Amino acid sequence: MSIFSTDILKKTDAYVPGEQPQDKSYIKLNTNEFPFEPSDAVKAVVNSEKAADLRLYSDPTCRVLKNAIAENYGLDAENVFCGNGSDEVLALSYLAFCKKEDTVVFPDISYGFYPVFASFFGLTYKEIPLKDDFSIDINDYFSDCGTVYIANPNAPTGLALNTEQIEEILKNNPNHVVVIDEAYCDFCDCTAIGLIKKYENLLIVRTFSKSYALAGARIGFALGNKELITDLEKAKFSFNPYNINRLSIEIGAAAMNDREYFEKTVAIIKENRDKLTNDLKELGFTVLPSGANFVFAKKDGFDGEQLYLKLKENGILVRHFSKERIKDYLRITVGTKEQNAALIKTLGRIIK
Amino acid sequence: MSIFSTDILKKTDAYVPGEQPQDKSYIKLNTNEFPFEPSDAVKAVVNSEKAADLRLYSDPTCRVLKNAIAENYGLDAENVFCGNGSDEVLALSYLAFCKKEDTVVFPDISYGFYPVFASFFGLTYKEIPLKDDFSIDINDYFSDCGTVYIANPNAPTGLALNTEQIEEILKNNPNHVVVIDEAYCDFCDCTAIGLIKKYENLLIVRTFSKSYALAGARIGFALGNKELITDLEKAKFSFNPYNINRLSIEIGAAAMNDREYFEKTVAIIKENRDKLTNDLKELGFTVLPSGANFVFAKKDGFDGEQLYLKLKENGILVRHFSKERIKDYLRITVGTKEQNAALIKTLGRIIK
Repeated sequence: MSIFSTDILKKTDAYVPGEQPQDKSYIKLNTNEFPFEPSDAVKAVVNSEKAADLRLYSDPTCRVLKNAIAENYGLDAENVFCGNGSDEVLALSYLAFCKKEDTVVFPDISYGFYPVFASFFGLTYKEIPLKDDFSIDINDYFSDCGTVYIANPNAPTGLALNTEQIEEILKNNPNHVVVIDEAYCDFCDCTAIGLIKKYENLLIVRTFSKSYALAGARIGFALGNKELITDLEKAKFSFNPYNINRLSIEIGAAAMNDREYFEKTVAIIKENRDKLTNDLKELGFTVLPSGANFVFAKKDGFDGEQLYLKLKENGILVRHFSKERIKDYLRITVGTKEQNAALIKTLGRIIK
Repeated sequence: MSIFSTDILKKTDAYVPGEQPQDKSYIKLNTNEFPFEPSDAVKAVVNSEKAADLRLYSDPTCRVLKNAIAENYGLDAENVFCGNGSDEVLALSYLAFCKKEDTVVFPDISYGFYPVFASFFGLTYKEIPLKDDFSIDINDYFSDCGTVYIANPNAPTGLALNTEQIEEILKNNPNHVVVIDEAYCDFCDCTAIGLIKKYENLLIVRTFSKSYALAGARIGFALGNKELITDLEKAKFSFNPYNINRLSIEIGAAAMNDREYFEKTVAIIKENRDKLTNDLKELGFTVLPSGANFVFAKKDGFDGEQLYLKLKENGILVRHFSKERIKDYLRITVGTKEQNAALIKTLGRIIK
């Protein structure tokens, strides 16, 4: 670090994303990417003719993309905010809604970026322990003391709250925004979208990185009432007005509009998840019931890090977290049938 | 705004970008875009095969892009930071280097985003008036009281400081970062890149949006000593690690590597700028000597806003700023010969 950096930057432990090896080819089950290619509709908008238009700025209002999202969810465009990946959407939500005098709250085991954002923006935060079974006790989130961040389904556990539970959290935080991070919600049926018109403090954050097979296009969005979205827009126009590039705006709209491909491929992932869960259980693994496109699993008597390293040696990348409570677990992205079979075969050999 | 927004957000006046009309087709000379298409090398990397890879996250280290930039400028990759447009690079520089107890300084007439960032991040700032001829008095920037932001050439004036003047500012701010925003520097010969190895407090910010014809791809970068770049990387990994999408990383590298196209097209813009300047002078306009891809011009007896509106009526967009000191001026992007000729013809008719 330089002598010029701020104290806050010095004190912040930056987020460590999953490995993105650029050298060797792995069966890559570590960052919850989608194993199928994006829709043909996406490929159709990525061409040299569109490249010619790159000389012009992108539309800072992301109109085409917003309209596609709004239409799909039966909302108005004014209920939609678009960002350069859901990380940017989350970051801007901290800047828009988290007040210095408040305490941001989220589970101790959840998306590792929540405490990083809080630290980076100089905010007080509180990590609330999950129960022993890794589920969320909603009663812990009724303090109304600051913005609440809940990933639903949660990561890396994969466990989901139901809509009634989300509603209880909303009711009990009338003075603060409750952000429901639904990055993985397309893989279960637990969305809070139906509550948007009822709760002015609900902000839902979503991404194209998982279920739309577009991690590399960097498109995230938020859904909420008009006033919250207006705040996020103001934050964006105070930070990076042209936050989404021209190609990604069109790519996102094309992917959102191709419902058939979306439904077909998401259904396959759910099927593969069930099979993977069963296969892991047959190998003696404990597997949490997942509502996401990954499973969280451990095997008694085996060290999580060792399993991760042995899988890596064998050309399979999964995610391991060194945090005490979950250090024996692996977070395994649901891949294609073939990828999952290769994982099961290799794991079987390792634990034999 | 919602009842949930922070006080800082409420108090911030967000940036207002130049119009990006999505409906009607204008001769668009208002946001300093490049009038030529990007290099054929760019078009070659935008295709459906690359779209297939979008299911994977982009490389958070932007290795390919960093290497291309470093090689072009005779620097190491560790001297290069890449961002989602130079606005993001600037925003992250505020978060990394601007301390609460300091005062950020920049000219009163300059890139309109500098005060927005300061306000949005809760920082104290001071706008230092340009001299009457709109030039910068470097003596005003010797206070060493906080991060200095100087656009060079300055926008919207187009006037540039020479390297010796930049060096004086660096020498006189030993305890603070001096950010030289060289968005337009490819259109003159005033870059401070040669000073990077000598001054640890120098951070240069650049963009692909102007001279590389890639405003819509959202690629910016910073050049500086290794420690400053490490700080920016940490800020990025505390904000949005995958900040550049897969396509733009490759697009930027391809554009940077095609030196022939870059040099050919930038040379045409400089030529067109000289002709446009002369033509405007022949119409009786005062035109500041520009080192950028725009000119800043006014005609005595004519109201800037009225000229802007009349041009718009005639299908030509230029930029007008309502700020008192410059409200009689128009900022006109240098276009193709044909676009510039159309502008001159229309202006001639308007002022007749």
